[in-house]
Amino acid sequence: MTYISPVEDIAFALEEIVGINQLSEQGAYPDYEADLLLPVLEEAGKLATNVLAPLNAQGDVSGCVLTPDGVLSAPGFKAAYQAFRDGGWMGLSVPTDYGGQGLPRSLALGVMEMMHGANMAFSLCPMLSFGAIEALLAHGSEHQKQTYLPKLVSGEWTGTMNLTEPQAGSDVGALKTKAVPSGDGAYALTGQKIYITWGDHDLADNIIHLVLARLPNAPAGSAGISLFLCPKFLLDENGHPGQRNGVTCIGLEKKLGIHASPTCVMEYDGAKAWLIGAPHRGLAAMFTMMNSARLNVGLEGVGVGEAACQAALAYAQERKQGRAPGIEGPAPILHHADVRRTLITMQAKVQAARAICLACGIAADQAQTAGTETDRETARLREELLTPIAKAWSTDVGVETASLGVQIHGGMGFMNETLAAQLYRDARIAPIYEGTNGIQAIDLAGRKLAMKDGAAMQNMLEDIQVTIRQARETNDPQLGQIADRLSSACETLRDCTDWMRQTMTEDRETGLASATAYLRLAGDVIGGHFLALSALRGRRAGGIRRARALALAGFYAETLLAEAPGRAAGIKEGGAAVLRDSEALFDLS
Amino acid sequence: MTYISPVEDIAFALEEIVGINQLSEQGAYPDYEADLLLPVLEEAGKLATNVLAPLNAQGDVSGCVLTPDGVLSAPGFKAAYQAFRDGGWMGLSVPTDYGGQGLPRSLALGVMEMMHGANMAFSLCPMLSFGAIEALLAHGSEHQKQTYLPKLVSGEWTGTMNLTEPQAGSDVGALKTKAVPSGDGAYALTGQKIYITWGDHDLADNIIHLVLARLPNAPAGSAGISLFLCPKFLLDENGHPGQRNGVTCIGLEKKLGIHASPTCVMEYDGAKAWLIGAPHRGLAAMFTMMNSARLNVGLEGVGVGEAACQAALAYAQERKQGRAPGIEGPAPILHHADVRRTLITMQAKVQAARAICLACGIAADQAQTAGTETDRETARLREELLTPIAKAWSTDVGVETASLGVQIHGGMGFMNETLAAQLYRDARIAPIYEGTNGIQAIDLAGRKLAMKDGAAMQNMLEDIQVTIRQARETNDPQLGQIADRLSSACETLRDCTDWMRQTMTEDRETGLASATAYLRLAGDVIGGHFLALSALRGRRAGGIRRARALALAGFYAETLLAEAPGRAAGIKEGGAAVLRDSEALFDLS
Repeated sequence: MTYISPVEDIAFALEEIVGINQLSEQGAYPDYEADLLLPVLEEAGKLATNVLAPLNAQGDVSGCVLTPDGVLSAPGFKAAYQAFRDGGWMGLSVPTDYGGQGLPRSLALGVMEMMHGANMAFSLCPMLSFGAIEALLAHGSEHQKQTYLPKLVSGEWTGTMNLTEPQAGSDVGALKTKAVPSGDGAYALTGQKIYITWGDHDLADNIIHLVLARLPNAPAGSAGISLFLCPKFLLDENGHPGQRNGVTCIGLEKKLGIHASPTCVMEYDGAKAWLIGAPHRGLAAMFTMMNSARLNVGLEGVGVGEAACQAALAYAQERKQGRAPGIEGPAPILHHADVRRTLITMQAKVQAARAICLACGIAADQAQTAGTETDRETARLREELLTPIAKAWSTDVGVETASLGVQIHGGMGFMNETLAAQLYRDARIAPIYEGTNGIQAIDLAGRKLAMKDGAAMQNMLEDIQVTIRQARETNDPQLGQIADRLSSACETLRDCTDWMRQTMTEDRETGLASATAYLRLAGDVIGGHFLALSALRGRRAGGIRRARALALAGFYAETLLAEAPGRAAGIKEGGAAVLRDSEALFDLS
Repeated sequence: MTYISPVEDIAFALEEIVGINQLSEQGAYPDYEADLLLPVLEEAGKLATNVLAPLNAQGDVSGCVLTPDGVLSAPGFKAAYQAFRDGGWMGLSVPTDYGGQGLPRSLALGVMEMMHGANMAFSLCPMLSFGAIEALLAHGSEHQKQTYLPKLVSGEWTGTMNLTEPQAGSDVGALKTKAVPSGDGAYALTGQKIYITWGDHDLADNIIHLVLARLPNAPAGSAGISLFLCPKFLLDENGHPGQRNGVTCIGLEKKLGIHASPTCVMEYDGAKAWLIGAPHRGLAAMFTMMNSARLNVGLEGVGVGEAACQAALAYAQERKQGRAPGIEGPAPILHHADVRRTLITMQAKVQAARAICLACGIAADQAQTAGTETDRETARLREELLTPIAKAWSTDVGVETASLGVQIHGGMGFMNETLAAQLYRDARIAPIYEGTNGIQAIDLAGRKLAMKDGAAMQNMLEDIQVTIRQARETNDPQLGQIADRLSSACETLRDCTDWMRQTMTEDRETGLASATAYLRLAGDVIGGHFLALSALRGRRAGGIRRARALALAGFYAETLLAEAPGRAAGIKEGGAAVLRDSEALFDLS
């Protein structure tokens, strides 16, 4: 069993659930038309299914190797990267000015989901490049853009993000890497960075490192960090990679999963670099990269979750054990109701996570391109709101789904040769990197709920009300039942949102102690909203699509949405209990 | 950070939560007195902490090796096993007639939890031996007992369970291994068994395989399987291991975790064996081993969960990131409320799982030794009820806790060198083997709820009512709040139990589709009951013990117990939704 790109599911989510075709109707993307959607997804799907997926297991076994000449990627990865590059996938959503194709970000995200699902270790490389491209687009000088973007966008060069140091993880403001002006407008970087994904490799001709560092006499903490551009090879007068710069991979981490993605310790030894944006404004630039990466990491959860669903379903169809009603002889375990329930649980959550991530992508597109300032602002708020939910909720779903996938496989799921076991290991990083899920929860409960007097969540809750009303207006009893569950869940979310906003102001520690529980509730309810919407829109599509959307929404409503009201106590009382009882449980001296 | 045996927590659970000292009061175990409890646990705790835990990481890296002479265990394991054997730990709860110490089973389970927590791969060896001992005690002839038990009980020999074949996993009745009478009262076994834990190794002088096989002309399915005893080395006239028998390990599985536990493919090639019990009655004998093993696997969940809690707490105390109220400079992440909440979640679930498993152990003791037939029958029902819950709920808690433990470690948790990552891999097998958690749910919903017209769960619900009443009678507002949450949760469990019993009779497929959700609810509520009881009993203990028990029970009540009422829909409607919508989602032709 290997991964088959879920082109139709992604197309349905983009078209029907999150409404990508609004974008072409409003003329925001002159190069995008609705009838491009399926061909683009199909072409990307072929690359994922035929080129990337077959390398996944071998990459897990081989991993990468650090040699005196740098990091060698896993067998086959170089050719796969060339196919990726030749397909023009890196520039899909980059403006045409820099060699991109000017298509919506949300479409590129649909493409990336398939790459993550097929081979998460591989896809981290373009994901990080994309973050570097976005940071340069937003904060680079015109000269920097002209010099570096075309090669990054074509995929001839790749990009990295260098944030973490041993003492500076979640607390990025604690970083120590130094940038000293060298008098020629450049800087010399000195320090060590860890956990640098695809920090070195042999896939591309150059690697453009974006590095956070401190200028001399910079203020302490995050107000004193600046962003630098540091190429692996300095460019010669023709703009070609020339002299080797003073940045080296000095170690590779041995990890639980994503073995084919080199996780590098990077040594900067007076490496030549250039400031991106203003001094001491690195944090803002970093957040451009981080927000892009966060949403993409959410899609890793979706991709790996989808892969786990597919592997589990294939195994359940093939493996015969025991008897089942209506089957002669040993029955495929798919015929056991408990197995089917597990599969439906997995599928419903993955589809909900996909919708949340793609809705965040559409909001990002609208924030750039909507016709009025008001609409752009509304979209920006939606993007800000959904980013931490997309990242945290979807990656938790990825881990849960991968774990359920192992379970469906029984003993075979615990064997190394099974994809299920690899997915269980690979999935586990996604809740950790690009801001742990705890950090996402604090971002949601603190910053995102407070923006514009709470407008972001308020707008979301209003959208949910529209869906409830529309579902009821169909007079379809199944949709009516879904609407009832969604309505109770939505009231709980509204109530807990009010509580959280007030508590973050009046008693911040208590709010922080419930932030993760709140994010989880928000994801459950918003995910349920998108599934309800898909059941509504699926009526138009008809046939199996309609039946499938209704089935996933119906099951989700009776489980996750029905549970939502009972989760208010865990938010309102659970956090208070943590603070009240901490002294009894922990030595906090 | 390595594992420290939680002697006090286990002693508290045994004494105060599940009441082990009833056993000595009623004189059931002449060799057990209350003041033995702590010394026994402390001694075992030293072995676990000082001998087994230090080998855990190396065993994960080295694994076992198959050589032409058989399986070599991981470095240090042979000496560790000798220390285990010399301590007399194998026979702790075996009757003195066969060289055991005649102490309660529940005490031995407390001991085993620490061994599992320290080194799950190692502890599988004695765990399987114990299953073989129990099967022989219950079903062996007196001659078989005299011949094999003393050496198994001393630990000089070990035992295994040989059930699974490639086509016969959960459906053990599909097995094909043949047993042909050889005319001298013995049988010749021929066939292949897979997933045989510690099927071969170099720790002991002999290995006694208990093997399920079919006699000639046996009925089809599980009604035609018989249990055989097949030693690795046949015994000479003095009862010493002599000639090599025709059973060989022909392969070792490469697994996600428990690398130091050899998972063997065993080839039986006319191996000499003897029938245990009556022909075609192997299933009953197998269940003796399985029930013992299931409870022990539940304790693996507890042990690994405890290890994950300890590692996460140690890391949270040591790792400094960001600022926290009242702390100068970078704060240990323990001071972040979100991290503490995660730790409390882990601790509360582990303590609840521990109590469920040990309560099952006490019930097993009482079922053997209570003074009246009525009391023994009541205890047997409790043991039967709690066995699938102890196995499934606790192992799910083990996986969840291990995953949260990785999360607390941040990026470091994804590195191979961290115990957290090993625990995440090791824990994943426990929901699978000895009957998948789905099988446990079917056992609970089908067989266990139906026994004696539902008496087992009825009695459990009555016990919960007593706890609620006692908690309210204290007039302690915190205990009152816990009682209120427990009361609503208990009503939900009662209601869902009635629904499940009726549905399993009238519409079995729908019941089966909700069996896992029902088991999960039952575990949540019964676990919450034991934590409430611990808070009640902790009042007697006073001090930190009292505060800690109240803290864990209070947090659990506001989260898992408060969520319980919202889970009824997932049971009553969720299963129906699965059956209604299966055709839309799956090809069931």
